This record gives sequence, C-alpha cells and structure tokens, in this order.
Amino acid sequence: MRIDLNSDLGESFGAYTMGLDSQVIPHITSANVACGYHAGDPVVMEATVQMCKQHGVAVGAHPGYPDLMGFGRRNMGASPAEVKSYIKYQIGALMAFCQSAGVKLQHVKPHGALYNTAAKDYKLAAAIAQAIYEVDPSIILLGLSGSQSLVAAKDIGLPCASEVFADRAYNADGSLVARGTPGAVIHDVDECVARIIRMVKEHKVTAITGEEVSLSPQSICVHGDTPQAVAFVKNIKEKLMENGITPSNLGEITVG
Amino acid sequence: MRIDLNSDLGESFGAYTMGLDSQVIPHITSANVACGYHAGDPVVMEATVQMCKQHGVAVGAHPGYPDLMGFGRRNMGASPAEVKSYIKYQIGALMAFCQSAGVKLQHVKPHGALYNTAAKDYKLAAAIAQAIYEVDPSIILLGLSGSQSLVAAKDIGLPCASEVFADRAYNADGSLVARGTPGAVIHDVDECVARIIRMVKEHKVTAITGEEVSLSPQSICVHGDTPQAVAFVKNIKEKLMENGITPSNLGEITVG
Amino acid sequence: MRIDLNSDLGESFGAYTMGLDSQVIPHITSANVACGYHAGDPVVMEATVQMCKQHGVAVGAHPGYPDLMGFGRRNMGASPAEVKSYIKYQIGALMAFCQSAGVKLQHVKPHGALYNTAAKDYKLAAAIAQAIYEVDPSIILLGLSGSQSLVAAKDIGLPCASEVFADRAYNADGSLVARGTPGAVIHDVDECVARIIRMVKEHKVTAITGEEVSLSPQSICVHGDTPQAVAFVKNIKEKLMENGITPSNLGEITVG
Amino acid sequence: MRIDLNSDLGESFGAYTMGLDSQVIPHITSANVACGYHAGDPVVMEATVQMCKQHGVAVGAHPGYPDLMGFGRRNMGASPAEVKSYIKYQIGALMAFCQSAGVKLQHVKPHGALYNTAAKDYKLAAAIAQAIYEVDPSIILLGLSGSQSLVAAKDIGLPCASEVFADRAYNADGSLVARGTPGAVIHDVDECVARIIRMVKEHKVTAITGEEVSLSPQSICVHGDTPQAVAFVKNIKEKLMENGITPSNLGEITVG
Repeated sequence: MRIDLNSDLGESFGAYTMGLDSQVIPHITSANVACGYHAGDPVVMEATVQMCKQHGVAVGAHPGYPDLMGFGRRNMGASPAEVKSYIKYQIGALMAFCQSAGVKLQHVKPHGALYNTAAKDYKLAAAIAQAIYEVDPSIILLGLSGSQSLVAAKDIGLPCASEVFADRAYNADGSLVARGTPGAVIHDVDECVARIIRMVKEHKVTAITGEEVSLSPQSICVHGDTPQAVAFVKNIKEKLMENGITPSNLGEITVG
Repeated sequence: MRIDLNSDLGESFGAYTMGLDSQVIPHITSANVACGYHAGDPVVMEATVQMCKQHGVAVGAHPGYPDLMGFGRRNMGASPAEVKSYIKYQIGALMAFCQSAGVKLQHVKPHGALYNTAAKDYKLAAAIAQAIYEVDPSIILLGLSGSQSLVAAKDIGLPCASEVFADRAYNADGSLVARGTPGAVIHDVDECVARIIRMVKEHKVTAITGEEVSLSPQSICVHGDTPQAVAFVKNIKEKLMENGITPSNLGEITVG
Repeated sequence: MRIDLNSDLGESFGAYTMGLDSQVIPHITSANVACGYHAGDPVVMEATVQMCKQHGVAVGAHPGYPDLMGFGRRNMGASPAEVKSYIKYQIGALMAFCQSAGVKLQHVKPHGALYNTAAKDYKLAAAIAQAIYEVDPSIILLGLSGSQSLVAAKDIGLPCASEVFADRAYNADGSLVARGTPGAVIHDVDECVARIIRMVKEHKVTAITGEEVSLSPQSICVHGDTPQAVAFVKNIKEKLMENGITPSNLGEITVG
Repeated sequence: MRIDLNSDLGESFGAYTMGLDSQVIPHITSANVACGYHAGDPVVMEATVQMCKQHGVAVGAHPGYPDLMGFGRRNMGASPAEVKSYIKYQIGALMAFCQSAGVKLQHVKPHGALYNTAAKDYKLAAAIAQAIYEVDPSIILLGLSGSQSLVAAKDIGLPCASEVFADRAYNADGSLVARGTPGAVIHDVDECVARIIRMVKEHKVTAITGEEVSLSPQSICVHGDTPQAVAFVKNIKEKLMENGITPSNLGEITVG
C-alpha cells in the first residue's frame, strides 16, 4: 500500500524567504515547485530542483495566475485560452531546470485560485489538462479528489492523481469545507493521521455533516511553512509506515 | 553558399502590439522569440511559434533581462549566476510552446543589454553559454561576430553561429559602431545589400575608419518593425538569391 | 449648456506605444491618465500630464487592477480593502506629476474591469469612493451614469460626475448593452452625435429595446486610439458647439 | 543635542513578510517606507504609515529601482530622466497614504543601488533631488554623509540630512567600507554606541585605516530585521539618552 506525500515548495522570491523547504524535503515524496507567476523566481526554482534531486523527491510544477501581489490566491478573469498558454509557459520554465538537473518533470499541480476554480469549472480544467498534454502527455496532473480537474484529465487520456488533505474537513459531496467555516481545519495530529490512514486503507472519510464520503487518494498534501508543520509531516510519514503504508512518489503509484 | 536571416519577433505584450510579425516571417529563416522578461507573453509566444511553424521558420529564444519597462535595453547588475537561471527559465518557457507545436528550439540569441554586455564580458557570456548547454547542448548560440559570446560557446563545445548586421557600420576591431555615432546606421538599401554580399562571399567588411575587417557570418539580423523594414528584408532576400546565396536556417548551415 | 469630453490617455508603457494622445488632447476637456498598474509608466505619466497642461485639459487618474498582461480588463478577486489601497497608490502616484506640473488632480475614473464591476457592486464602489475621499475629498469621481459608483460617492459626499458613451447602445435599465451583442456599438457618426445632443439637452436616450431612458450626463467618453476615432472626437466637439453645447471640464460643470 | 534614528520599513510584499516593523517602530524617530518598486505594496504601505502615525514616527519614502526580483540592490542602466520620473511616482504613491492618515511626508531616502550610486554620481543625485523638489520643495532628502546626494540637494535648495551608520566602518574619505571587506561591519554593540556618540558629539569617526574623519550626522540608520537588531536599536536609543542626546525626527533637527 502506497501514498504520495506532496508539498508546495520553491515559494521564495528574490530577497523574500517563504517555507522551510530544506527541512520538509527529506520527509516528502513529491514537490510542487512554484514557477515564477504567483511565487518563485528562476534562482529559487533552480535551487529547489537541485534540492529535490538530492533527496530523491519527484519534481512537479505548481503554476499559478500571474499575480505575485496576491500570491495567486485571487481569481482572475483570464480566459481558458490564456490560462492554457500560462500553464505551458510555467511548466516549460521548470522543465528547463529539470533537464539541467537530469530529472523528469513528474507532475503538474495548479496553485491557489487556479486549483480551486479548475476543481469546479470544467472549461478551465480542460484548458489546464490540454496544456499539459500538448507539452508532454506523460506528465501527471495532480488534482483535488473528485474534482473537474481529474475528469478533464481522464477525458483526454492525461495521467492524473487524486489529492486529499490531511488537515481539512470534507463536505458530503467530497469537496473541502471552506476555510473560515468552523471545523474546516483539523488541528489534532492524531485525528489527521487516523483520517489519512482510513482514506488510504478504506477509501473513506467522514464528512463534517456525518456522512461517509468515498475517496481514492494517491497523494496527501502536507505543508512545510512552520517548524510545527514540518514536525507534523514527519509524524504523518512515520505513522503511515507503522501502518504498512509506504510513502512513494506518483511515478511509483498506479495513477488514473 | 548559404546565410541565415534572423529577426526579433514575438515582442507584443498583452494589449500592446509591436512588430509586423506576420509580414516579416515569410521572408526570414530564423526567428528570435521574446520570452516574457523584456517583451512577449505566453499567448504571444504560443502564436508566434505557430506562425513560425506554418512558414517553416526555425524558432529561437530571445531571452532578456527582467525589465519590461526598459524593454531589456538597460543593463542590470545581475550576477552571472542569476543570469544563468534567468536564461534557463526563459528558454524552457519557449521550449514548452515548441514541444506543443512539434518543433525543436534551434537557437538562443540574448536580447538587448544582455546581448551587448555578453559580447564584451566573458563571465556573463560563459553564464549564458553554460545555461544553454545544461538545458540542451545541441541548441545553437547566436552571437555577435567576434564577440565573447562566441568564444564562451566554443570553450564548452556549444554550437554557435556568428551574426552580422546589414545596416550597421563596423569598427576596425569588428565591433559595431555605437548607435548615435554619425554613420553608425546605414540607410541606403543598395549599400546594405552590397556589404552583406561581400561579408558572405569574401568574409570582409570595410570599417567606418577604412580598414578591412574579417568576418565569417552565418546569420544576418533584419528587422520587421515598419513596412519599410519588411520591404528591406524582402529586398535583401531577393538580392542574396540573385547572387547565388541561399537563405537557410542555422540548422542547415555548418555552425561553429 | 456644458458637457465634458473625457478620453483614456497615457496608456503607453516603456517601448510600447498606445493611443494617439497628442492628436486627441486638443479636442477633449478631461484626460483619464493610466497610473502604471494596467498601463502607463512614470515617464509616460509625466509626459501626459505635461501635454494636458499645455492644452488646458484637466487631468484625472485612471486606476486599474495590477494586471498589465490583461490591460486591467480582467476581473481580479481583490478584496475591497485591497482595492482601496490600490486606488490610493495610483492616484497618489499621478498627483506627484500633477504637483510637479502645477495642476490639480480633477477626477478619478476607474479603468476596465474595475470600472465595470464597481458599476454594479456597491461594496467595491464604496471602497473606491472612500479611497478617493480619504486622499482628497474635493476630487471628482467619474462613473457610469446610473451606476453604484455614483451612489457610493453621493453616500459619502464625494463629488461625482455621470458618464455616458457616444457610441454605445443602452439597455432599458440604463446599463450599457454588452459588447458583442448585436447593435451594442453604434458606428454611424451622425447617429452618435444626435444621441449625445439629446442626452445633453433632453436627458433622454432610446434603449436598444425601444424604451426611453432618463440620463443626466456630465461627461462623454471618447476614444483616441485610431485616426478615425480622433476625427470622430473632433466631429462631436464641433457638432456640440453648433448646437449650443460648450465642451467644458468637470470643474466647470456642476457635479453631483 | 539631537539625532534622528531611521529605519527601512514596509518591505513586506503580498504574502511575503520582511522585517519586524511593529517591534522596531517604537524605538525609532523616522521610517523609510518602501514604495512598491523594490519592495512594499499598497496594502503594506497603508498599514505602515498608520503604524508610524500611532507611534509618532515621521514618515519618509524609500524609493528604489523597479526590480522586485533583485530587491532594488542591483544597478540598472536607467537614465537620470527615467529615475526622476520613478522617484516622483513612488513618493506620490506614499504621499496618498500620508494624506489619508493626516501626516506629512517628511523625507525621501533612496534605497539600495539607487542610494549607493547616487552617493557617487552627481547626475543621478541631481535627478533625485530635482524630482523631490518639483513635487514638494519642503521634503528633506536623507543621504549618505559626504555624498553627492547631499551636494545635489544643497545645490538646488532642497533641505537635506546627513546619514551615518552605527555598525559600518568608514574609509578615510568618509565613504563606507564595502560589505565583504574584513572589518566592514562592526558587531560589538558597545563599540557601535561609542562611535555613534562620538559622531554626534564630536563630529568625528576613526577610519578603518586609522585617520580621523569629520562627519556631521543628523540621522543614524538602524535595522529591524531580527530580534537582535531590534534589541540593538533599543540599546542605542537608551545609551544616546543617557549621554544627553535626544532621539528626534528630522523635522525637529536643523537640516542643511
């Protein structure tokens, strides 16, 4: 039994440092590397890919809207055609660093508002999937479990992987409970771990409203922005292994 | 006898249009496509690569400093290590559109201040050549005839091609006479054509101070920003062919 | 009887030229100057303010979303609080050039997506009006006739002026017929002029669906991006004067 | 006996936090607020001005080159005319937040490469001084002691103040010993304090090569980027007061 542990990395920019990348990398299996639109710059991208290579962590692109000031968290009324070109641009830029380092770009996980909107908007999701497919049809799209992103990838034969969140509550329809809603974020580590293990082993999670939700996760999103978060990742990884679940990157897992 | 005709294209940005790309493309053999740092955006890049493909024009990257406001024409005190990452980023971004279109990235020609400074500064030139080499050692560096850019490429075994200018006067040392100096720009079309033909056939040009300068050009830089410029390119192409010189892209020419 | 003729100017950026500013300025009474977020740069802003001063054209700010690649025409999910700060930033920047030139900033007209969204979204409109008021409560907000922008300005005692479009069809509720809808743009000059004169004299326009719409315009938006557009502005101005309507900037008109 | 304590603040950008602004503000008398070109954004600027107002700290602008990726620390080949417009733009933007908060913009201190280059380059210094003067001739230019920036300000009658550094060694000509040179940065707090007190009281500092250098400081630059730096500022302030020197903003000090 295998599961991928992915984390958003390479979000520093120029003189601005964000994330404890060097501390979290040893504990994850796949990295989503920012590509210079919402975060990251070429120097940071190059260093991040190198660090991932050293630790055997698979490299993925984490493209976002061209909105550094809003960190890609704000929706932009960009057309699907524009987004398609933005995605190609960003994954190409990261691929140059991958080629330099002799590693393959494993996956693409859209960031922030792009991730959230594509989860519900098939047209946007299709533009993203098509962009990846046209650049390299062997790249895996990493998208929210149950999202339109995964539907769009499957529709064109792009490999995809389903992502779940260790510390987020779910609605009965499999969507995430919006941040800000009471109970949306689960702070108890043991509860998070228990939920993850159940998602991986039983393909189930209990919704915030009590229903049983079916999920089939290939990857868990974890964070590395604080020492507590890093400790949490380390903890999850150890608990998974104690429960017979091997952290493995997406290339080592059968993806959709 | 062959020579490449290259032109800077894809310099539009968002709502801003620059250059008569669709008019000049039928008359050239290689395109230097801006990569989003000093000019160009992903939508423009994608369209430009498509247009080049349709006309059988080879695609090259035209990376510049991250200075849209200055159009990459101003020097920036970026370190060679920073420039190396900037170059990789930009050529990778363009490669994504090339891969999508099923064409190979043929060459890289640095833009503006980066081109001019690297021509004289070996450390900067070496950073650029190394960046290209690490991404793909079969990409051709297109640099100013007699420049440090070409020296740096040869030093690491990166293929390179020597560029001359149809409408610019030369100094006795083979460098370009600085714009603004009287006589720096040659406006007479016949004189330009005669100079080009002599450069290609005899590998010579007469310096502004009268000396004979040796040159061994593989590519001529032409412009497509005005209807007159486009007519001039068409004219040069026809005159070259009348003189037994076949316009050919860099891949069809033996480069250094 | 007076009416203001306003036009969007100063939209060039670095090496990119947009608009025939020097040609349209002699025919208008108020200029909306881009402030560097969706268009314009400091050098362009300074030159535009100087040109306005020379021709006695009143200067206004034309702030937009921070989206140069989309020319401020795309919605962004920026919060009203963020927009409030963005507006202050941009109008302050332009005020520096006004102070240098010894002219007063007359008005603020939001650009593109910001203008359109604020027309319908009271919270966004209130953020914009409040931003202007806090910087200088004597600055006039120029907003779409019948819009929430004007409501929000009146609610806090900010002077405001109502804008109509010479070449756009209106819906029965006083809103503009969306571009792309058949009949949305009126191309016949005489019809445009007749509509404008009726709006100014009778405060009426006939909706695309035949109803009579009440309007009380203080300003007409005109364009200067093509020679035809400039000729159209000249034409409107002459016809207005022939009909006893004097083009006058907003400071010379009683605004709400 | 009075001296100003100034610090660079408001350098956060979007999701990126930099500096312990809220901790250092209670211990300084003047703030240099980044203006969105090398650091800072409108939301950060507005909050920083508010915080300064609450603590009675005078607000100054800290304009830089348009190089967020390089944090304004890299030279750019911008012309003096371009820099002049960039300075006006940035100080205007900050003035909007000052006007909103009901405080006056006290001073302008150029940032990073702009500060260092203007210290030696009279033409650049003159462009900066002229920009400030044209916007408001009562704004104080804060420049390096002995620099061309101060010469240029005096030449046009712009008030100016001379800045010294508590923790930096000086050359015999009054310039700062370049970072990276052994001994360039003084780490011993007591030595820093002793040097400052001597600079303020005796207008002397001992150069790294042993000579006595004459200085006439009106302001000391201090940092707030680490808890240690904040403690150091607090320490300096207390020691100055124990020695009969009152920390006071530039408006309370007779400037040149």
